[in-house]
Amino acid sequence: MPEPFETPGPVDADLLAAIGRLVDERRQRYLDRLCDYVRMPSVSAEDLGVAETGAYIRDVLADGGFDARLLPTAGHPAVLARRDGPPGSPHVVIYGHYDVQPAGDDALWDSPPFEPAVRDGRLFGRGTADNKGQHLAHVIATELLVELTGGLPCTVTFVLDGEEELGSPHLEPTLLAVRDQLAADLVLVSDGPMDPAGRYQLVYGLRGVLAFEMSATGAVRDLHSGHFGEIAPNPLWTLVHLLASMKAADGTITIDGVNELVAPMGEAERAAMAALEPDPAAVLAATGAPELAPSPAATLNERAMARPTLTINGLHGGYDGPKIKTVLPHTAVAKCDMRLVDGQDADTVWRLVQEHVRRHAPGVRLTRHGAMHPSRTPMDTPYAGPVARGVRAVTGQEPLHVPVAGGSLPMWVFTRSLGLPALLLPFGNYDEANHAPNENLDLTCFYQGIRISAAVLLALAAEGRARRPHAAAA
Amino acid sequence: MPEPFETPGPVDADLLAAIGRLVDERRQRYLDRLCDYVRMPSVSAEDLGVAETGAYIRDVLADGGFDARLLPTAGHPAVLARRDGPPGSPHVVIYGHYDVQPAGDDALWDSPPFEPAVRDGRLFGRGTADNKGQHLAHVIATELLVELTGGLPCTVTFVLDGEEELGSPHLEPTLLAVRDQLAADLVLVSDGPMDPAGRYQLVYGLRGVLAFEMSATGAVRDLHSGHFGEIAPNPLWTLVHLLASMKAADGTITIDGVNELVAPMGEAERAAMAALEPDPAAVLAATGAPELAPSPAATLNERAMARPTLTINGLHGGYDGPKIKTVLPHTAVAKCDMRLVDGQDADTVWRLVQEHVRRHAPGVRLTRHGAMHPSRTPMDTPYAGPVARGVRAVTGQEPLHVPVAGGSLPMWVFTRSLGLPALLLPFGNYDEANHAPNENLDLTCFYQGIRISAAVLLALAAEGRARRPHAAAA
Repeated sequence: MPEPFETPGPVDADLLAAIGRLVDERRQRYLDRLCDYVRMPSVSAEDLGVAETGAYIRDVLADGGFDARLLPTAGHPAVLARRDGPPGSPHVVIYGHYDVQPAGDDALWDSPPFEPAVRDGRLFGRGTADNKGQHLAHVIATELLVELTGGLPCTVTFVLDGEEELGSPHLEPTLLAVRDQLAADLVLVSDGPMDPAGRYQLVYGLRGVLAFEMSATGAVRDLHSGHFGEIAPNPLWTLVHLLASMKAADGTITIDGVNELVAPMGEAERAAMAALEPDPAAVLAATGAPELAPSPAATLNERAMARPTLTINGLHGGYDGPKIKTVLPHTAVAKCDMRLVDGQDADTVWRLVQEHVRRHAPGVRLTRHGAMHPSRTPMDTPYAGPVARGVRAVTGQEPLHVPVAGGSLPMWVFTRSLGLPALLLPFGNYDEANHAPNENLDLTCFYQGIRISAAVLLALAAEGRARRPHAAAA
Repeated sequence: MPEPFETPGPVDADLLAAIGRLVDERRQRYLDRLCDYVRMPSVSAEDLGVAETGAYIRDVLADGGFDARLLPTAGHPAVLARRDGPPGSPHVVIYGHYDVQPAGDDALWDSPPFEPAVRDGRLFGRGTADNKGQHLAHVIATELLVELTGGLPCTVTFVLDGEEELGSPHLEPTLLAVRDQLAADLVLVSDGPMDPAGRYQLVYGLRGVLAFEMSATGAVRDLHSGHFGEIAPNPLWTLVHLLASMKAADGTITIDGVNELVAPMGEAERAAMAALEPDPAAVLAATGAPELAPSPAATLNERAMARPTLTINGLHGGYDGPKIKTVLPHTAVAKCDMRLVDGQDADTVWRLVQEHVRRHAPGVRLTRHGAMHPSRTPMDTPYAGPVARGVRAVTGQEPLHVPVAGGSLPMWVFTRSLGLPALLLPFGNYDEANHAPNENLDLTCFYQGIRISAAVLLALAAEGRARRPHAAAA
């Protein structure tokens, strides 16, 4: 592990132990609070209960001594809530989101999505893990610190998004408008799962994503392939040749300029990637794939962390029945997503995709469906050490240091637009079933998350005191 | 037009006029006979009424003085019926098929498919044009010739297929088993439509077809593109790159060895192709396509007649809903057909396709769905002249001489397996709606078909008398 992780003073063990005892005593109380929160539907995509839920969690934070308010956006509001720590202490922004995915088909749930139910030590319900339980753990941690010490060890600002499940379309302008209140040292995000073995992961970067659709049209109707094959244009051939021009058979993306944008990985990232390199045989076993995808990359982590991808999510055109129909289809559609890495601004890549399609298949209609910039925080950020120390203080185990992960979180708003280091520390169990039926949060993860949040805040404060941090608490 | 078309003696004009008068007098009677025939469903794909219909048309031929019998096959029987002309007269095989396409959705028909109904001078019903009306015209022509002259001017053998709509899977072995009875001078087929302007077409060659499916599989289930993109193989990428390796963006087929098989067109074919070259603007207007398909061919008729095609009939895999789903599909299927030209034996091409796929994408599963060899009869066949003369004698107009057409008729069984020249002379109206709801035959085409059939048989007999043909009538 890089050196900064092994820095100053231990977290106050007595205080942590006291917090641990309180969490144990109050398991039911905290579970009830999570149930209350999950019971409020807040489905941003369906405009269901979002404003009420935003107001609810704002009030929870206000009750906890935060200066809490709703930030209106062109869509659903965000919650901004700040409570200052001692003068000169670090300022930590904790980002989460109070909106949830649509429940989908209720029939696929073993218990109703908005009637939280405990089974086998897990709380089932939409939003339990994604993300209500994870940020509520942080909220409760701040309450416990105030209860036991009379205040917070450092300044904490919660930013709770009401549109994360929509791709956070208004987060950037909303936060830029209050950027003077976000002059923080670190942004901490708890979303997504721990690793399959239950180890905590400290994630420094997230890949971006660019999703788009390409549709081709030939004749105004399907034609007979015997009469019009090679005469009328076949939109499937148009898309096949266009797609083949965008990625070579060896896996190299061949859209002009896209690879050139990639910012190289640093020494620390390369070392961490090597430390985490998975066993290809295990990947094949887990997916049932007969072989790996063709790729010019030397390692699996290079594919997963260091290089962009171009995936065809769906390609459809023409006959789809049994046997054969000798038809020349008149229309076809390909849906694609690209995963972007540091340096690959999604808007720049989109422009390159547009130019490529214009050059290779000018008749193809291109539609952008969504984008998220990549985010990277250098692994030598001085705040990684205290966060890892907080995790160790609770679990006795070093978290995995992951240079880049997948997932679609708007970390880029903090790193790219606000210039802040941002770290992801998921609290959820690996099989949390985010976005799926029977979403759940292992209650051990929930309670452990409260402890870890408190420990991390204490460690950051200790680090701040030791270093006399450059950023003021104001 | 090539010289052989302008050969000996006129067709007996008085006899033709007498036939024409009888056809006019007996319109209702012949219509009733066609209605009786169409009323019998004979759907080979659904095993509906095929045997009964075969027996029916065998009896019709027997009543007309033919030595008629059913030839059993592994599927539905064929009808073989012969009546000899004068010793030394030519022997003409007339091929047709008594089976019909499935009716499809009855609701799409304006009148029930097996209750023939006359509207606007057309008879509507499944099988009216494809092919009952067309070969019944030939049958009635032979009856009229016998009625007016006491016999046929040349030997006629009807071969009526009961499985044409299934691709004639048993026709070749069935006919090879009776090849001594098929030592003919010419095979004549009336199926499909006249040209859009209502001109008769004399077609010398048919393209073959080879239909197949390629399916690719990656992981055992769909995966998340953010986690597994470029790691697990994407069957859509596999198919895109495989397909792109089979045909270049400029339209050139790049399956090794396939183009080398093509037998070059002769002088007469090239001249006829040039004479028939369509106006590209008219093709674009008819299809609504914004441009022609990319092709290295210089002319549209080269694309349609002289070169093989490779059409993707359908390509499906992955997400097919609105907007986007960042999925990595685990399976994808492409359905393709190739149109083959003279020299391109379908089995040889199939072997080349298999080799290509094995070399470029060994994991892809390849399934053959059907094949038909191409057929070509040289344009200088001595029997083209009399057939054209027969058409002229009735219509006053030279038929179009078409070197190669599309369509899926088993002409190859006659040209390739039996070594006979075979010509196609369609009697149907251009908008006959074969294989579709509201299939119909313009009754003028039906009555005109009877006259032309008689005139063609008379012209072939006259030609035979003039030439002392090499083939005996036996």
